Amino acid sequence: MDSKAPTVGEYLISRLHKLGVGHVFGIPGDYVLGFYDLLASGPLKTIVTADEQGAGFAADAYARMRGLGVVCVTYCVGGLKVANTTAEAFAEKSPVVIISGAPGMKERERNPLLHHKVRDFDTQKRVFEHITIASTVLSDPQTAFQEIDRVLHAAMRFKRPVYIELPRDIVFQRGNNFYQHREIHEASDPVILRTALADAIARINAARKPVILADVEVHRFGLQRELLALARRSNIPVAATILGKSVVSELHPFYLGVYEGAMGRESIRRYVESSDCVIMLGFFMTDLNLGVYTARLDLGRCINVTSEKLSIGHHNYEDVRLKDFVRGLMNARLRRRAAPSFKKLKPAPFRATRSTRPLTIRALIRQLDSFLDKHTVVISDTGDSLFSAADLTIHRGTEFLATAYYASMGFAIPAAIGAQLAIPSRRPLVLVGDGAFLMTGLELATVARNGLNPIVLVLNNSGYGTERHIHEGAFNDLWPMRFHRMPELIGTGRSWNVTTEAQLYTALKEARQHKKSFCLIEVKLDKLDCSPALARLAKRLAERVSTPRKSSTKMK
Amino acid sequence: MDSKAPTVGEYLISRLHKLGVGHVFGIPGDYVLGFYDLLASGPLKTIVTADEQGAGFAADAYARMRGLGVVCVTYCVGGLKVANTTAEAFAEKSPVVIISGAPGMKERERNPLLHHKVRDFDTQKRVFEHITIASTVLSDPQTAFQEIDRVLHAAMRFKRPVYIELPRDIVFQRGNNFYQHREIHEASDPVILRTALADAIARINAARKPVILADVEVHRFGLQRELLALARRSNIPVAATILGKSVVSELHPFYLGVYEGAMGRESIRRYVESSDCVIMLGFFMTDLNLGVYTARLDLGRCINVTSEKLSIGHHNYEDVRLKDFVRGLMNARLRRRAAPSFKKLKPAPFRATRSTRPLTIRALIRQLDSFLDKHTVVISDTGDSLFSAADLTIHRGTEFLATAYYASMGFAIPAAIGAQLAIPSRRPLVLVGDGAFLMTGLELATVARNGLNPIVLVLNNSGYGTERHIHEGAFNDLWPMRFHRMPELIGTGRSWNVTTEAQLYTALKEARQHKKSFCLIEVKLDKLDCSPALARLAKRLAERVSTPRKSSTKMK
Repeated sequence: MDSKAPTVGEYLISRLHKLGVGHVFGIPGDYVLGFYDLLASGPLKTIVTADEQGAGFAADAYARMRGLGVVCVTYCVGGLKVANTTAEAFAEKSPVVIISGAPGMKERERNPLLHHKVRDFDTQKRVFEHITIASTVLSDPQTAFQEIDRVLHAAMRFKRPVYIELPRDIVFQRGNNFYQHREIHEASDPVILRTALADAIARINAARKPVILADVEVHRFGLQRELLALARRSNIPVAATILGKSVVSELHPFYLGVYEGAMGRESIRRYVESSDCVIMLGFFMTDLNLGVYTARLDLGRCINVTSEKLSIGHHNYEDVRLKDFVRGLMNARLRRRAAPSFKKLKPAPFRATRSTRPLTIRALIRQLDSFLDKHTVVISDTGDSLFSAADLTIHRGTEFLATAYYASMGFAIPAAIGAQLAIPSRRPLVLVGDGAFLMTGLELATVARNGLNPIVLVLNNSGYGTERHIHEGAFNDLWPMRFHRMPELIGTGRSWNVTTEAQLYTALKEARQHKKSFCLIEVKLDKLDCSPALARLAKRLAERVSTPRKSSTKMK
Repeated sequence: MDSKAPTVGEYLISRLHKLGVGHVFGIPGDYVLGFYDLLASGPLKTIVTADEQGAGFAADAYARMRGLGVVCVTYCVGGLKVANTTAEAFAEKSPVVIISGAPGMKERERNPLLHHKVRDFDTQKRVFEHITIASTVLSDPQTAFQEIDRVLHAAMRFKRPVYIELPRDIVFQRGNNFYQHREIHEASDPVILRTALADAIARINAARKPVILADVEVHRFGLQRELLALARRSNIPVAATILGKSVVSELHPFYLGVYEGAMGRESIRRYVESSDCVIMLGFFMTDLNLGVYTARLDLGRCINVTSEKLSIGHHNYEDVRLKDFVRGLMNARLRRRAAPSFKKLKPAPFRATRSTRPLTIRALIRQLDSFLDKHTVVISDTGDSLFSAADLTIHRGTEFLATAYYASMGFAIPAAIGAQLAIPSRRPLVLVGDGAFLMTGLELATVARNGLNPIVLVLNNSGYGTERHIHEGAFNDLWPMRFHRMPELIGTGRSWNVTTEAQLYTALKEARQHKKSFCLIEVKLDKLDCSPALARLAKRLAERVSTPRKSSTKMK
């Protein structure tokens, strides 16, 4: 074989690097040690996390901030620990590459019971086929380069996770020297694109009160600039979904707020639902985006474009790319309307308070809203952290991260690691409940190791607060932890234990100054306190929990 | 429908209870809240863990101690977090029932994007099909009882995990009132059983030096008593595998020790490999059981019986059950031999030491060996915790728990929860490395909440110690945690930070007295210190890590 071809491991690393990746998250294990060694001498920095789950969440956040994220783990005992985070990336369209070490192809002969093996050698691959958009086992150096390019292309094209299994005896084998990498650009069909744009433009210009509803794919496909230009040129107002929140700076006068059916603010609901032309950009009809199906949107009056489909009223169009369509709208002759100006309560300046009132979620969010600045990225875990964070004013694009559809707990702290490594100039502000902290809170060790400095607010309401409002039981209680003692365990970091508005002010002020390590603010909340959004949501979710009825049979 | 039939949820709970289950491990979520509510009013106690991963490990340990374990989680965000622990249960033959809440059947109509959904409604089920021995979605109350019995039977028959998905609108629906539960007893073919036993007995009686090699299935199928009787009546000595360790009390004079090829003690290797008739009971040919394939066992001279196959020399037999065969041997006329008596270094009494020598793994194991008593269950995490624990003297059956084949990190602390709830009279002694502690150490909150009192030894050697001996790199380093500060975070528990033999003695002595909460002993070890077994293992594993060679291409 020609000696000039790179090895399979080298090729994989160089492709990831060209796609903008700078960090790889994971935990080494013997099936992947050779590749870790190769990583150590290359351009990608390896971030070893506390648990593989943390690596998965971190890579997902990294992908959302930077366009592509990578997890690198060992076979099965590492890989299967990121099944959930990979499913999250799939559900919320985040392009994460899962690289798993594996037994060498030679070792697999005669099917021995090698450690970490579950059932068959392809068991892990089969599991990942269900939760990724493309997958491969690099079993042959001759085809490895094509395979790498095929799955990486799928990750970028569909913004979904992909799986690459790297048998350890393949890592240092040279690939096909005659292989040429080609960029694949899928183009829209020009005739259909023109027709669809004409259809859309006619409807928009004829509409009395058009509105843009921007969702997750505007983030994923990097269309924030186009969205901004479209809104500015046409003066059509913009609402965001909860999953799409922060798609534009929320200080823009044309920005309406977060639309989530009857769950969100009433004025926003009324505006969007009375529109005669809703331009949905990259919008997914999830239950949470639709306010648990309280949204009343007549698709006959919607323009609905995603990377997967385009429909304009009841016309469906094939072969039109999201980017082409949005750019087409941006450059179209749209009727320029009167400038919208939605009165929004501007966040008050961040000001001292001497209030000794016990903190409530409302008061907390009010203070945080004043505290945020354009250097903050807000990262929210699942639960009331998310629902209350929906009311925060986000200052510019992609500054709000949450798993607002898949809704997996434990996301926020590892996500802060991924986010801050992706864009070091942003300081994460993390909102996490006590329940979620118990899942991944030890990733603060990873935070410490990498010199990161998120401000972590642990909203301690003594249990699974969201569930209490859906269906209460002792199973919603949690052990009373003293989260503010984390710095003693980690050996670095600062912390505050706050119960009043005045204490929170002091803690936030000091945390802003203290930049050399993480800051943890434990906020004690009443166990039944909740945001207005959660109160509305819980009511609807509770209807769907089957409730026990009296049964004539006894349990034996 | 007849009103006397129990509901699907009631039937499931009552079947589990009849099979000996007393506890269910998990975390509630809205798709499973109704079932949690039902659990709260029934005979099974719900144990809410810090993370679902912890629930999975705890249920696995519970199953190993008590015969069946149960995890109960919500859809996808809960279920997919236990993919790894389920795979562990599959690989190491532990019967764990995974119950997952799910969207109601009604809700699934028109395929909406409900929260927690990944791809299709059956995505989670498909994932679990690869890592369980049977699975079902209880989509119809009319067939639910049969389905429950079918998968529970499979769990008991194969000692592997099973998956039960419970749509939330089915929980409280009544099942088929005419359904009768039937116990299924699979019998051996009597003619084949007789033939096989005659074949085996002839070989054993003709053998000069037979030996029994007992592995995992003796634990799983509860055949310890039969094994003991067989050894006592025939005076045939017994060796255990690392996965089967503690299958008999290690103080018995006929007990040889742990056989693991060239990785274990040389005298044991020589004895077993020079035997002309190795009676393998429930033995799986894993790489770790075989000392990374250093075992030299001639199958032509082996009797090899598991729940899956029976071979005697080169004769294979079908339709013979493990239990029937072992009982047959137990009752057979086997030639009674001279009583074996292997000189074993009896553990010295637990005695004070004033040695200020820095602790080593060897010294630690020596002290622990004296410390153990018949009320201890030793639970070891993956890594040198396991390899050194192999040398501990276990006092009676099923007192050693480890994931000695699948080798997933993070097992030990949650396993201590499962083990102590399964058999409250045993006090767990946990050996866990710093790397594994970072994964599941916050489960000490669950320990506290349930009033358990394990003694946890954190072997802090500043990184992934096992890997250092296989392939060293900065990726094996970990942040210097102060694990002994955990009680401050949890608000209960006692801890010691020890570096010398004398300090360890004091800590162990005090921990024995302190029974009202967990005890955590942080043991500082040199980062390159390791057990003799690890030194031997690492050498062989290192040969299999592909090592980078100089490459003529540069990485771009």
